[in-house]
Amino acid sequence: MTSKFTELAIDCADPSGLARFWCAVLGYEVQDDGEDGVVTIGSPLVPEGRSRPGPVPPTLTFARVPEGKTVKNRLHMDLNPTDTDQEAEVRRVVALGARPADVGQTGDESWVTLADPEGNEFCILASRQP
Amino acid sequence: MTSKFTELAIDCADPSGLARFWCAVLGYEVQDDGEDGVVTIGSPLVPEGRSRPGPVPPTLTFARVPEGKTVKNRLHMDLNPTDTDQEAEVRRVVALGARPADVGQTGDESWVTLADPEGNEFCILASRQP
Repeated sequence: MTSKFTELAIDCADPSGLARFWCAVLGYEVQDDGEDGVVTIGSPLVPEGRSRPGPVPPTLTFARVPEGKTVKNRLHMDLNPTDTDQEAEVRRVVALGARPADVGQTGDESWVTLADPEGNEFCILASRQP
Repeated sequence: MTSKFTELAIDCADPSGLARFWCAVLGYEVQDDGEDGVVTIGSPLVPEGRSRPGPVPPTLTFARVPEGKTVKNRLHMDLNPTDTDQEAEVRRVVALGARPADVGQTGDESWVTLADPEGNEFCILASRQP
């Protein structure tokens, strides 16, 4: 018996706005923009979604919460550029609304640490994955 | 141009211990237990790993950090039981070391909120996904 990791849930102030940012970063589309204020995004390349057997690329869900972000997140996403190099991808993502994040890195890391428009840290890795 | 979400990085006190818990929950295996203290786990059903085209099920990486968890995580995983119902899966995961988590839920939710052995919140959803 196991469970599968089907959704990464993200607390936020502006579900629609943050969903737009992450759609642009990952090439995802809005799958559900519910009246309950929860916005779900996923890849259009995974049409069968969560119902297919085995592990799946999780959707991202954005839910509005009253409290703001106060500390460095314990969980964060690491991304691989798919069709460009790290430097160009960092420029693209910063143009979309990300900003550099200081989480105590030394500067020798192979990855680049950024934060999304609500301050959630994420990294862009050096390796290129098609 | 896009990036793909290839890794979910989790700050923790005990990478090996937390990796063991999550391997048991998700049916994953340790893929890399690096000397740098970072443990990576992933599904043995995804042998081609991150290099395949398109979105992938992300691996989980556990990295030791000096600071402890202080607030509810802004990001959390939602899980679907694959071959049992929600109630049985909650029992199984609690037996593995999870515990009930109070994040202000009303009791009317369709999901069950738990915390892993280091207090990271996650939910087990009601729907069954094969």
